[in-house]
Amino acid sequence: MNTDELAELGQQLRVDSVRASAAAGSGHPTSSMSAADLLAVLLAHHLRYDFERPEHPANDRFVLSKGHASPLLYAAYKAAGAVEDGELVTFRKLGSRLEGHPTPRRLPWVETATGSLGQGLPVGVGIALAGKRLDRTGYRVWVLCGDSELAEGSVWEAAEHAGYENLDNLIAVVDVNRLGQRGPTRHGHDLDAYARRFQAFDWHTIEIDGHDVDAIDRAYGEALSTTGQPTVILARTLKGKGVASVEDREGLHGKPLPEAEEAVAELGGQRDLRVRVSEPQAAAALRSLTTEVVQLPRYDQGEEAATRDAFGTALAALGTARGDVVALDGEVGDSTRTEEFAKAHPDRFFECYIAEQQLVATAVGIAARGWVPYASTFAAFLTRAHDFVRMASISGSGINLVGSHAGVSIGQDGPSQMGLEDLATFRSVYGSTVLYPCDANQTARLVATMAGLDGIRYLRTSRGKTPVIYGPDEEFPVGGSKTLRAGEDDRLTVVAAGVTVFEALAAADRLAEDGIAVRVIDLYSVKPVDAETLRRAAEETGCLLTVEDHHPEGGLGDAVAEAFGDGRPVPRLVRLAVRTMPGSAAPDEQLHAAGIDAVAIAAAARLLIEEAVVR
Amino acid sequence: MNTDELAELGQQLRVDSVRASAAAGSGHPTSSMSAADLLAVLLAHHLRYDFERPEHPANDRFVLSKGHASPLLYAAYKAAGAVEDGELVTFRKLGSRLEGHPTPRRLPWVETATGSLGQGLPVGVGIALAGKRLDRTGYRVWVLCGDSELAEGSVWEAAEHAGYENLDNLIAVVDVNRLGQRGPTRHGHDLDAYARRFQAFDWHTIEIDGHDVDAIDRAYGEALSTTGQPTVILARTLKGKGVASVEDREGLHGKPLPEAEEAVAELGGQRDLRVRVSEPQAAAALRSLTTEVVQLPRYDQGEEAATRDAFGTALAALGTARGDVVALDGEVGDSTRTEEFAKAHPDRFFECYIAEQQLVATAVGIAARGWVPYASTFAAFLTRAHDFVRMASISGSGINLVGSHAGVSIGQDGPSQMGLEDLATFRSVYGSTVLYPCDANQTARLVATMAGLDGIRYLRTSRGKTPVIYGPDEEFPVGGSKTLRAGEDDRLTVVAAGVTVFEALAAADRLAEDGIAVRVIDLYSVKPVDAETLRRAAEETGCLLTVEDHHPEGGLGDAVAEAFGDGRPVPRLVRLAVRTMPGSAAPDEQLHAAGIDAVAIAAAARLLIEEAVVR
Repeated sequence: MNTDELAELGQQLRVDSVRASAAAGSGHPTSSMSAADLLAVLLAHHLRYDFERPEHPANDRFVLSKGHASPLLYAAYKAAGAVEDGELVTFRKLGSRLEGHPTPRRLPWVETATGSLGQGLPVGVGIALAGKRLDRTGYRVWVLCGDSELAEGSVWEAAEHAGYENLDNLIAVVDVNRLGQRGPTRHGHDLDAYARRFQAFDWHTIEIDGHDVDAIDRAYGEALSTTGQPTVILARTLKGKGVASVEDREGLHGKPLPEAEEAVAELGGQRDLRVRVSEPQAAAALRSLTTEVVQLPRYDQGEEAATRDAFGTALAALGTARGDVVALDGEVGDSTRTEEFAKAHPDRFFECYIAEQQLVATAVGIAARGWVPYASTFAAFLTRAHDFVRMASISGSGINLVGSHAGVSIGQDGPSQMGLEDLATFRSVYGSTVLYPCDANQTARLVATMAGLDGIRYLRTSRGKTPVIYGPDEEFPVGGSKTLRAGEDDRLTVVAAGVTVFEALAAADRLAEDGIAVRVIDLYSVKPVDAETLRRAAEETGCLLTVEDHHPEGGLGDAVAEAFGDGRPVPRLVRLAVRTMPGSAAPDEQLHAAGIDAVAIAAAARLLIEEAVVR
Repeated sequence: MNTDELAELGQQLRVDSVRASAAAGSGHPTSSMSAADLLAVLLAHHLRYDFERPEHPANDRFVLSKGHASPLLYAAYKAAGAVEDGELVTFRKLGSRLEGHPTPRRLPWVETATGSLGQGLPVGVGIALAGKRLDRTGYRVWVLCGDSELAEGSVWEAAEHAGYENLDNLIAVVDVNRLGQRGPTRHGHDLDAYARRFQAFDWHTIEIDGHDVDAIDRAYGEALSTTGQPTVILARTLKGKGVASVEDREGLHGKPLPEAEEAVAELGGQRDLRVRVSEPQAAAALRSLTTEVVQLPRYDQGEEAATRDAFGTALAALGTARGDVVALDGEVGDSTRTEEFAKAHPDRFFECYIAEQQLVATAVGIAARGWVPYASTFAAFLTRAHDFVRMASISGSGINLVGSHAGVSIGQDGPSQMGLEDLATFRSVYGSTVLYPCDANQTARLVATMAGLDGIRYLRTSRGKTPVIYGPDEEFPVGGSKTLRAGEDDRLTVVAAGVTVFEALAAADRLAEDGIAVRVIDLYSVKPVDAETLRRAAEETGCLLTVEDHHPEGGLGDAVAEAFGDGRPVPRLVRLAVRTMPGSAAPDEQLHAAGIDAVAIAAAARLLIEEAVVR
């Protein structure tokens, strides 16, 4: 396309953005109009993409980090022939796949869900890393960012990561329209301010007028010929560009244009230009990945091993069996034990340093390309990436997250290092699976099982050694549980998971000495929960006592209660959990102080059983 | 102190770090040893602090961002005469206030809990802002950072914030010891790499040898004389400095020295130097803050208003009555309505732009200085700051967080903008209060009530207008609820909060038309929960049906279940919640699609009541 044609295409994208938002009665046309020329030139001249084969291994990848500019994206899909004009006006309506912010799977060309700002570039870095180190099919990753979102620290985590990894297949384009939601950004049209920051993180920078299609074209060319570092194109643009009544004005964020028809006329009227998007390079050969039967580590019953150790060994074994498994570390691999994978499979190991948002974003990007990532750090520090996990669930991303050092049982390090909210966090994520093993064989099995699940999968591991109580061939289905003590005379059921399983067993032994029989369930699958076994235990023993190394809200106690949320009669429920703010102390002292050790369980059980007798 | 004395003091801090860690059998002596000279010179020559009066309004503030170097901090307290030598060796033991990572309140000189890396500088920025714009007593804020933590995006959010706000009362000192937990950092001893980054964010930078006490002394002087911008001192150091067997070696992070006695000897043996720390400037006059009776907005029953609007108006009114109330915005003040506060009280309004970690960190810093901050953004985006909220709870910080645009009822914007996990997140935080009002008068009251609570207080607001159902003088105690429909023939209780209250009322009306009486409870206090009223309703109606615009885990349903966690008989419990991934649609379509509207409530109630009859 020549200059005039490119400019016309930009106008068409503006017109269609205005029309879609007008039909919806909501949306972000002004944020679309500022970036229209940037996307027009990309689509017409530089993107290599087969819209009929979004799964093509050599397709470039495009991420709309400023997801609220979805009308622009959908207008581009129309220009590329992927979406009909008639569908455009279903924008934001019930049942339409053209949502307020783009969502993968619902739309086959969307790589990752955006709409929480500052996440597109981090995930783009993950995709670009997959391109460089795993796929190697020559695709480039284009990320269109807003300027407001550059205030997010996650953008600079990503910038640091990309610069350090020399990702010259990554091109960020920043639509510097100087206006955020409620007014001007910090730096307005000061492109140099942004350039200085990116340069400091070892990026190549290009500053242009984002409405000059030839300048845009040249900038893309320069970015593609830059080697050894990622490029950012900083484009000076005007929000609402092309319609005088809204151009460069405050107070118009996220609002359809007041006079849509006049605006379309001012933009030169409706057009129906079609772009021939370049084909991707010839598809590389399919990945040849080993897929053997996994040789998981086997632990003898009676020996002691930390579940984090079993995780590390099992993950390395899984990586040997499956060539699509990848591991990511937040610079604590010696603690989480991902270092074992790193040693065995350095080519599929990604060190993300102390940057948990980037850790999870990288996993999301790599998963978007079909790999099976396991990202791990301390359970406590995964809270840092909560918004990324939330968005990953919207993406339908299949990622494995492993949080170590859970609970007060870590001991002396104190509360800042203790994951005491992680079960709540991960349970509340849509479509998640939450697993909390207590012994090494169970951990190894669950590590392998996770790989085949959908959605966000979370595994909680513990710091200290625990006895091996299961055989290496025992199976642990997701949604299952293990009943470790059971008899006809059980007068109460203790439901535990992880470290509290051993406290529950010890309590059961003490009570048995006094002739009191209690049932013990290992609820290793916290979500989904084994409602059937819990209900049977409730019917047979009358009372469930949950014990967890976690705050009382959102964890094991709530998961058990949820199993009785179907309107059927509910047993008596009591929960022991960490209700105080811990300090430093030895692991056994911590469990005792929190009231979740064998002593506390036995005492609570006695009280409940006596109460039952009195009644 | 002269050069030799300063060096001696540094050695003493090393010795005491080694001793404390040896006594504990754990801890981070090598990370303490690298920064010992930096802290020695600060303590002896530049810090202005009255250890007997930690509340002194003109005290400098010191934040140990690399919180794992706590032995160094405690050694410094000993050198300053604040802690006895005998207490040092209680480090990390049960009941000791010298925890693995420093915790405020337990130790009066600690400003904020650290141990999750990358949080000290963000909170330090908050304190420095309070110093510049609120306290104005001339204190300086010193933050000692590690080099590993510079990979955290939150550090660059803070750097951006501090640079933009010209915080020349803020001095960051980075202990560049080149070794992280599991190995070398990205940039090793390349001080220039860090300097370029900080310079790009408009900081003054100084690079020094962090073991040259005179160079350190000069750098502090230069930092103090720098105006108009914050300063970072980048200090080249060696981890484990001073003991050859551990100095600059990998694999020794977080471990006591293997031969502690020999190490102490190598460091020149035990010393007992005492430092005379400089006095703070004469205390400024006490703040003169208006404290009038708050004139909250009053809404007429029957009118419609969004709870977010009521929040904005009430917060502005609270700011008029109380001079200690401060508001912070994440660049969405036009949506959350903090813009009303900004207009009324620009001197106490802090725009943090789109940087939610920095938003919460600033609130924590300002709260540490005795102010009462209200920080708000979309509920969904507060997930971004989860780790900061978690750490704030360890600090015992009194902050108000307000999340708007909760739930599917926001409508067309789609799932990325919907807070559907926020109740779970905030419930699971230690010592938190979680409030979810349904009408404008209730909101206004709760906004005022929050200010006087302890710990993390969360208020959830809604986007759309809802009917005003309470009078403006109605009271809403924390831990209470409102029973909106009740009669002797009630056959079931619907428990709702926020937008679902109106769906519950409409369902009750429909059911009443068919002669079915149901009770309706507005559970505006989600944590603590009104267990007594719930229990009474359960006894009297036999079944509780919870309805929430939130995922089924961790929210209202779990809160109600928890009220029955005391071992007493439990009623039948059923929960309606958002169990699917929403798309775009109108608010009423969203509520219907999620199965939490009046139709769904009435249908569920009928089913449950019929089941009860059958049984």
